Amino acid sequence: MFAARYGHVSVVEYLLATAKVDAETENKDGKTAAELAEFWGSTDCAAVFDRLAPNKKKVQHSTGSPFASSNTNNNNNNNNNNSAMAAGAGLVSSTGNSNNTNTNTENGSMADWWKRRTVLENKPLHFTGSTHNRLSFLRTDKEYLEESVKAPSTRFLILADHGVMFKSSTKHLAFAQYEDVQHLIGSDPLNNLPEGLVLVFLGADETNATSDNEVLVRGRRGIGYWALDMSAKGPRVTAELKDAVEKFINTYTEKHGHYMAEMRPAAFGLSFAESGLVAQARAVIDWNKRNQFCTGCGRRNLSLDGGHKRTCPPMIQENGQEVPSDCLAHKGIQNFTYPRTDPVVIVCVISPDGERVMLGRQAVWPKGMYSCLAGFVEPGESLEEAARREVKEESGIRLGHVMYHSSQPWPFPNSLMIGCHAEALNEDTNVTLEDKELEDARWFTRAQILEALKGSRTAVWGKPSENDSLRLPPATAIAHHILKAWATEEGEIPHSRM
Amino acid sequence: MFAARYGHVSVVEYLLATAKVDAETENKDGKTAAELAEFWGSTDCAAVFDRLAPNKKKVQHSTGSPFASSNTNNNNNNNNNNSAMAAGAGLVSSTGNSNNTNTNTENGSMADWWKRRTVLENKPLHFTGSTHNRLSFLRTDKEYLEESVKAPSTRFLILADHGVMFKSSTKHLAFAQYEDVQHLIGSDPLNNLPEGLVLVFLGADETNATSDNEVLVRGRRGIGYWALDMSAKGPRVTAELKDAVEKFINTYTEKHGHYMAEMRPAAFGLSFAESGLVAQARAVIDWNKRNQFCTGCGRRNLSLDGGHKRTCPPMIQENGQEVPSDCLAHKGIQNFTYPRTDPVVIVCVISPDGERVMLGRQAVWPKGMYSCLAGFVEPGESLEEAARREVKEESGIRLGHVMYHSSQPWPFPNSLMIGCHAEALNEDTNVTLEDKELEDARWFTRAQILEALKGSRTAVWGKPSENDSLRLPPATAIAHHILKAWATEEGEIPHSRM
Repeated sequence: MFAARYGHVSVVEYLLATAKVDAETENKDGKTAAELAEFWGSTDCAAVFDRLAPNKKKVQHSTGSPFASSNTNNNNNNNNNNSAMAAGAGLVSSTGNSNNTNTNTENGSMADWWKRRTVLENKPLHFTGSTHNRLSFLRTDKEYLEESVKAPSTRFLILADHGVMFKSSTKHLAFAQYEDVQHLIGSDPLNNLPEGLVLVFLGADETNATSDNEVLVRGRRGIGYWALDMSAKGPRVTAELKDAVEKFINTYTEKHGHYMAEMRPAAFGLSFAESGLVAQARAVIDWNKRNQFCTGCGRRNLSLDGGHKRTCPPMIQENGQEVPSDCLAHKGIQNFTYPRTDPVVIVCVISPDGERVMLGRQAVWPKGMYSCLAGFVEPGESLEEAARREVKEESGIRLGHVMYHSSQPWPFPNSLMIGCHAEALNEDTNVTLEDKELEDARWFTRAQILEALKGSRTAVWGKPSENDSLRLPPATAIAHHILKAWATEEGEIPHSRM
Repeated sequence: MFAARYGHVSVVEYLLATAKVDAETENKDGKTAAELAEFWGSTDCAAVFDRLAPNKKKVQHSTGSPFASSNTNNNNNNNNNNSAMAAGAGLVSSTGNSNNTNTNTENGSMADWWKRRTVLENKPLHFTGSTHNRLSFLRTDKEYLEESVKAPSTRFLILADHGVMFKSSTKHLAFAQYEDVQHLIGSDPLNNLPEGLVLVFLGADETNATSDNEVLVRGRRGIGYWALDMSAKGPRVTAELKDAVEKFINTYTEKHGHYMAEMRPAAFGLSFAESGLVAQARAVIDWNKRNQFCTGCGRRNLSLDGGHKRTCPPMIQENGQEVPSDCLAHKGIQNFTYPRTDPVVIVCVISPDGERVMLGRQAVWPKGMYSCLAGFVEPGESLEEAARREVKEESGIRLGHVMYHSSQPWPFPNSLMIGCHAEALNEDTNVTLEDKELEDARWFTRAQILEALKGSRTAVWGKPSENDSLRLPPATAIAHHILKAWATEEGEIPHSRM
């Protein structure tokens, strides 16, 4: 079920082939694994179910679900659509289905439409798909946070410098408990955390809290997740804390067989759920570390909301008296007290004939490595305007239509990658014309991209290439997926044969 | 031509009806006004051309343009598609066209596809559509900036506090020249700008620089645009500067009949091109004002890149000696030295049957005012995850598929609104369940939304309502457009009759 939800094809294949699982088992929402795979856009997985367990799709669906329908006939139609999607159907197949479903009841047609239209957008990308509830509305509830941080069930993700704690010889995160870290964070960590540590409330996993094994925090079910960074850097960190941290990491990892893994590349080997947890932790911790002073007055600021807010002190000392601060941070509407997320457009530029894409490379990249053009969205421009400006500046290509595909958080340190496909209006490139950011930008054919995508599936960032052939970003990066969607004519990406 | 490009329907209507213009005139890319209107998604405008100048579409198009095609027959087909779009065709009509165009040549089919698929995404929204080139790659070119800031052709947008300078009794921006503001900004404004002023390079308008009236800055054509904020606030601002600023604003506005307009609501009355200029200026100026100190060490930072970067001093004074700074700002990868843009998801939540939408209201809003649910994207989540989390937290509604529609910069102070349509999986709302941000959230029918959209076209933000009827955000806000797209079944928005 879990494998189907997160698109782990080989796991699904193995489990079904060896009959280790019953494909008809339903989750608490009444969905089978095959349906979960389809709902979450794991077309590869769905294809495996079609092949190895063709009858394992339920016939009756509950109303209101994304598979809502009112009769069996309609359902067969659903299945036809799903198969078409799993095979990477282009626009023509999809619209063919659309015409067929006009005779369906309203709900069936609606559900089909949503699935067809958003098959690409809803594909989970790395660093998305986390299953915990962030409970952002409880970050101001001090009683809840106090109880959560000390609950025996609560799990602490341990980070230090560029490392994150992993379980012994696995690709899974390790978690500590309050009793393990109490001597470091103290008995009042929300108000008196020692300088050099960062503590962030990530949320709670409400899926594992069953009635048999109920975990209540202020009457609310769910296992709390916190991130604890113990980099212990800076002039105000005590020698005692530095020693205590070093000792904790050494003894705790040794006792449990855990290890501190380098965030890059270790985070890229995690499941979607765990990668989402790390993305949130890494971005919010980096923001806390780099935002210790108020940007409006230079005074040291205060951490609030379980690590999700830093605010300028409202009262300051002046001539021995406590007076209200005159800092600009307390005036007008502003959002600078909350963590920053920088939107970046990353664009798969498609040639006028639909058969080639424009990629660029920076001089510092490994030999043969190319990727989609990308750049930060600037103040006062839409995503589409940012895409047109960046591509024009970097390659000299003017864009016509720009079409959103999907988005991916990228916690190095705090970007939100927004993937698009776009229509090139000219074919002549001039990479030295404007911003000189790229060493080269050129067109690649569909065949070249398909060949390179095979190799990149297992490529490691930064690993030197053995020959001159084209290398593309791996499947953990959104660039891989917007290129793949175009190259395989998956969903509604334009190509000359449609 | 300009009116067609920016979708000013009434202007196009007037000009055509009174035969004041020749609809066959082509711009420098060989496009007629009707084609520009269609290309930029101004379906209202395109409909006017269909009605008043039905033959004013060119028959031969150049290859590579968004209207590329290889024969006249194909072109007729294009026009049919355009008419269908102008009439607000839903999915069925579009797919019908798609099937027709299968027999077309490759290019014609491609161009049709792009236009159909992105008709909504490319509709200009307020604060987008600016025509100037930001020239972001020249911000580090000191010689270019030096020459641009002093060029006689350069235009200074004047801002102070919440005001921006407008031309006398018009809805257009006023601009000053270097000679007007030289006594305020001095002869070396890029290196020695008086405390209390903010100067930002916005870019250059390259469209007005014809060969007859050529403007060259370091050999490059284009009229420079700069924003100059003269709020002159803070303890370090001299009394001389405050006096000089007050005198300048009084005498300059009086001399030219200009006036300082309140940014809100004045910016909402601007053309798209001018609103884009104001959005960029307002967001970057606010960021400069609120980011005078380094977040990593609390030291005063330095302005660079024509107002688009603020950096921690690399060298500091320590014990009378100049030594390298140990600030975290100089370590690792970070983007905090550049202006901040906060992505916000704003979601049109569609009921399972496709016939109602979920809107919410905050207690402080005017009576009867409702809008789409919205919230900031957090670190470590995709746009789709942010939409699901926010809607669940605010209304108790679980979302299935989430579909991107369009985006709009919102410079109050620095948001990027990302509009989506999304599928509700349940209908029972519970607005007090979780974050309590909303006073009410409820479902509205298509008829209610259509009725309210009529009234909201001229609604002014914050104006009290005269009765209890539903009020929606005006056409300057993206919420209006994602609601309208759904209510009018415009483009590929799902509805029960498709």
